[in-house]
Amino acid sequence: MVYSVLLLGALVAAPAFGQTFRRTAACPKLGCVFPPDQTDFIAGQTFDLRIEVQAPVNGSEAYNNGQPDNNFSLKIGGQGGNLVDASEFFGLTDPTVEKYNFTYYEDLFAEEAHAPTPVNVLAKSYRNLQLHNPGTYDVVLTYNNGDTTTATWTVAPLAESKKAKNVIFFVGDGMASSMLSAARLLGHKTINGKYQSKLKVDEAPGFGAQMTHSLDSFITDSANSASALFSGKKMTVNGLNAYTDSTGKGVGNAKVETIFEMFRRIEGGQVGVVSKAYIADATPAAVCTHTSQRSQYAAIIDQYLSGIAGNWFPWAGLDLLFGGGAENFLPTSANGNISQFDRWGSEGYQVGYTKTELEAFDNAQRALAIFTQGNISTWLDKNIYPDTLDLAITPQGERGAYDQPGLKDMTLKAIDILHTRAKERNTGFMLMSEAALIDKEMHVLDIDRALGEVLELDDTVRATLEHLEEIGELEDTLVVITADHAHGFDVFGSTDTKFLQEQNSDRAKRGAVGTYLNSGLSAYQVPQDVLANNHTIFPSPQGDGFPVTWDPRYTIAHGWAATPDHREDYAVNKDHERLPAVKNTTGYFFNPEDNNRGFAMTGNLGTGEAQGVHSLVDVPVYAFGPGHELFRGVMNSPDLAFKVALALDLGRSSNVTAGYKK
Amino acid sequence: MVYSVLLLGALVAAPAFGQTFRRTAACPKLGCVFPPDQTDFIAGQTFDLRIEVQAPVNGSEAYNNGQPDNNFSLKIGGQGGNLVDASEFFGLTDPTVEKYNFTYYEDLFAEEAHAPTPVNVLAKSYRNLQLHNPGTYDVVLTYNNGDTTTATWTVAPLAESKKAKNVIFFVGDGMASSMLSAARLLGHKTINGKYQSKLKVDEAPGFGAQMTHSLDSFITDSANSASALFSGKKMTVNGLNAYTDSTGKGVGNAKVETIFEMFRRIEGGQVGVVSKAYIADATPAAVCTHTSQRSQYAAIIDQYLSGIAGNWFPWAGLDLLFGGGAENFLPTSANGNISQFDRWGSEGYQVGYTKTELEAFDNAQRALAIFTQGNISTWLDKNIYPDTLDLAITPQGERGAYDQPGLKDMTLKAIDILHTRAKERNTGFMLMSEAALIDKEMHVLDIDRALGEVLELDDTVRATLEHLEEIGELEDTLVVITADHAHGFDVFGSTDTKFLQEQNSDRAKRGAVGTYLNSGLSAYQVPQDVLANNHTIFPSPQGDGFPVTWDPRYTIAHGWAATPDHREDYAVNKDHERLPAVKNTTGYFFNPEDNNRGFAMTGNLGTGEAQGVHSLVDVPVYAFGPGHELFRGVMNSPDLAFKVALALDLGRSSNVTAGYKK
Repeated sequence: MVYSVLLLGALVAAPAFGQTFRRTAACPKLGCVFPPDQTDFIAGQTFDLRIEVQAPVNGSEAYNNGQPDNNFSLKIGGQGGNLVDASEFFGLTDPTVEKYNFTYYEDLFAEEAHAPTPVNVLAKSYRNLQLHNPGTYDVVLTYNNGDTTTATWTVAPLAESKKAKNVIFFVGDGMASSMLSAARLLGHKTINGKYQSKLKVDEAPGFGAQMTHSLDSFITDSANSASALFSGKKMTVNGLNAYTDSTGKGVGNAKVETIFEMFRRIEGGQVGVVSKAYIADATPAAVCTHTSQRSQYAAIIDQYLSGIAGNWFPWAGLDLLFGGGAENFLPTSANGNISQFDRWGSEGYQVGYTKTELEAFDNAQRALAIFTQGNISTWLDKNIYPDTLDLAITPQGERGAYDQPGLKDMTLKAIDILHTRAKERNTGFMLMSEAALIDKEMHVLDIDRALGEVLELDDTVRATLEHLEEIGELEDTLVVITADHAHGFDVFGSTDTKFLQEQNSDRAKRGAVGTYLNSGLSAYQVPQDVLANNHTIFPSPQGDGFPVTWDPRYTIAHGWAATPDHREDYAVNKDHERLPAVKNTTGYFFNPEDNNRGFAMTGNLGTGEAQGVHSLVDVPVYAFGPGHELFRGVMNSPDLAFKVALALDLGRSSNVTAGYKK
Repeated sequence: MVYSVLLLGALVAAPAFGQTFRRTAACPKLGCVFPPDQTDFIAGQTFDLRIEVQAPVNGSEAYNNGQPDNNFSLKIGGQGGNLVDASEFFGLTDPTVEKYNFTYYEDLFAEEAHAPTPVNVLAKSYRNLQLHNPGTYDVVLTYNNGDTTTATWTVAPLAESKKAKNVIFFVGDGMASSMLSAARLLGHKTINGKYQSKLKVDEAPGFGAQMTHSLDSFITDSANSASALFSGKKMTVNGLNAYTDSTGKGVGNAKVETIFEMFRRIEGGQVGVVSKAYIADATPAAVCTHTSQRSQYAAIIDQYLSGIAGNWFPWAGLDLLFGGGAENFLPTSANGNISQFDRWGSEGYQVGYTKTELEAFDNAQRALAIFTQGNISTWLDKNIYPDTLDLAITPQGERGAYDQPGLKDMTLKAIDILHTRAKERNTGFMLMSEAALIDKEMHVLDIDRALGEVLELDDTVRATLEHLEEIGELEDTLVVITADHAHGFDVFGSTDTKFLQEQNSDRAKRGAVGTYLNSGLSAYQVPQDVLANNHTIFPSPQGDGFPVTWDPRYTIAHGWAATPDHREDYAVNKDHERLPAVKNTTGYFFNPEDNNRGFAMTGNLGTGEAQGVHSLVDVPVYAFGPGHELFRGVMNSPDLAFKVALALDLGRSSNVTAGYKK
């Protein structure tokens, strides 16, 4: 039945499908309901409800000369029962009607012709709602002369028991399975086809895969995919726990509460955020902030500390925030010339700028530590090519951020602070720790730096489990490791870099690639002083789980599904991160300075793209600890939020707010 | 300890690592033991043991002017106990010594200079052995003046109970997770980020991933990867349940028994093989044949029927064999001018050449059905573009093989025959069913044909589970679905094919690709009569789980990690399979006839490669039925054979041969 109704919808509103630029996300008809049809809720999860009634002036969906009908209504009720007016159902006064217009392009031809379609809109938002009874609800918007848009919502059953006290959620940003296979090849050794050691995540007793697609597009960005993981709701690209409406504005969109926010609100639990990216970036922001525009960095920093005033529940600030991106904390016109460092300090946070200061933090106090402008340096730069740190920028804007932590340093210190504070308050803790630079390095096709980050994440997972055992929290802590999306990538052989460099044409250089039998074994695990290679690192300065050398003669031959024009020499970039393409007047072309001993490959992305892009493939899910068995098999990204909520027993049949002690 | 010993070995024999062309597979030192160090066995699994002592005349490992020491010995025993001479241990007379030489190239420079390294060899083979006691064994070869090569072997514990009576093992050849994600996108529909139906394999209660790498290279071919799945032993590229020795010959290599052979030998069970490829291809051949050279098609067909005479246990022929490749059954000089059709017929097999004849087979009799020369036609050709069947060749060599079955037809009939015969004999059955053309189509970058095969496999799994329930075998049948290796591939957006075709330059055409938000939703699920497109298929002639159209305006933008030069127009190839590159005097270049509305992309493979190649990423594992819980988490490919053996209770503490009734 649902299927045939849908086909009918498609017949009417077909241009909203396919790549066609959409009129409004998750709104195939002219009446929009957010959260849309098919949304699942945790019992007691807070959300906003927004409706829109649209009337395009022209184009394939033109309605009534662009005049939406003023007479529209919203009713809601348990499926099969009576529907009542939404204001009555939620016990609210009826919201005021917003009235505005926007424009959009129907397709590339319309865009090329600068022929937008204007749309007039009437809208209403209902704020700060909860549904407490598990079951199915129908939400019916009647509009434009009797047309209806129905959203069917489901509230998940309550947990039967609480499985875990604490949750640590690791995100390898952009980490596809192919990168884990490649990282294993570099960091571990086989004898006759059997690995002598493996990745820590390879041992996870909970193993699954999750579909990362977006609400209204099959390729996601990191904002909407992390929101799905943390709130259980798919979003539109760039959306952070807020449904992109037609206003074109980042604020005011319909919000949904995350599992981190629920944990704090319901249990008064400790919540920490760690990332190697600039800390206003999408994945950390998805822990507890709400905007349809991930680029609103000032608002995100503000929400970390103060939440959203007025139309949302109170938020007393994260317990800790460690990462990069000092530029968003310094006084600028974008944030009203406020030093967020000073502001957080005056709110009682310890503030630090170096690894040394991080380690000296009092574990009983809340803490803010920002180590660089931009992203924290990669594991490869910090550990193998430290001269590159001359280029890194300190929070204060100086060149040479030498005293930076790695992901392991930040994560273990975060656990110590959260554990100490949670114990004192008799609560649990939740930590989100992001290996953010996997994604950044995949975007610029810098595979060695990306795989260094994958191995650092795995090393951090190993150290985290060991540390949890040391502090007596292992049995009570669910540890989940997943990615928010993939990059299309794989290893397909090896390259004799010496042979490649000695060839004189692009086509001859390709002859250095060995496939199948001639891929051979991983040369990254062979001490280099026995090979014809001047770059010797032996024994490994990093110990188990990392390459003995990053610069062997025989390297991995690898490729991407989506690239700009670029060159490949399949050798590590020792001096700095790759920059595959540079812009000229007609778009991005091969960067002649990048991989210049290699051969040229034309890209398959639009020439406005400087970098690779995200991809479709399901990403892996690993889980250790109590509740790990929930994370098995093929899942959808929102399922992870529900599984964490189940393990922590976050569902509530009434509106609960516990006291949280700063 | 193992690690430091190994490093020492690496220091001595470093050129055997990396892409360097290897002297002999799995033999880093000059003394070789096959099966090599780190091999695991099922208790009672039959195998050959071969040793070689090598002396290179020159090169980096030159030894004693190329004269191997005649004085070498092989001892074996339980780890920590006394080692005894191998002949004594196995109760055999000492094998005769083989003496020969071979040559190899140390690297690409040596190959380019035509400077091979000659090696003299002494060798011995011990045939038809078994180890019956679980535990660890040391096998020590002493040679060349006291040097030693030690292989440590482990015999796995016996099963505590028998979980399954029957096993159906599906192989999606070359099927990476990325292709399943893409197939799901084409064949199923989302509403607001939630799939309304999913792949059948998405429901598997057993879910894992397996590492496909080879014995001595990190990229595998389909022979050695299928051998790992079916025998529990990694092989060298091109090896079918036989270790590639230094003779350069396909026969005589050290063999290992597969789980299908064990099942037949120990239980007298029914064994069937189904594939959409020519049936002498690597994956079906890995069920029960033994050669280090997968291209020995005549020998493979012969072994299906008669096994290996002389130095291996008796084999009374497969119970059924369904696939393509009639050319290997017709009389030719390669097979001694024997019609294998006649020969199998005279051995009591029903022989058929069409789907109609397949369906008419008596379920109580053994059967051979070969439907085409070469591969069976793809699902897309047969079901969507049937005019292409004019090009397909019947077993008898005529154009137009119209009466071909699909994978589902062959698999369900195979189950009926195996089930009927097993019931009459009070045994179980094992079936290997291969979706072989996923790989063939990925090699030629024909993504639509490849994804059609993935969806056909999923449809076959669904029908198989339903049919098992109908015939009362569901509770007794373990169903495993996996791949033998991957291709590096992913979807990264959508393409407006109409816009692309109307642009006049390669760079402008790339502007038709929409990423992230502009990927939109799957257009393959939208009835096409509402789009600006003349190709209308509505309603779907295939029903649930397949696209409504294969030719939407907005198609998947996708790419490969490894390609020859090729063009991309991102539209389905209606007339025939893709041929991306064609050869000229200096290698493979863009085929001007292929995807000629598209833009050109330079490849990254050696210019001698006409096609894409296999890749590294772990492949998914799905399991249904009794024992499914064994197939969870990250595994190595040989582990699957051990898990099947555990579910079927195949381990034996003595040499067992049951009577098998034809």
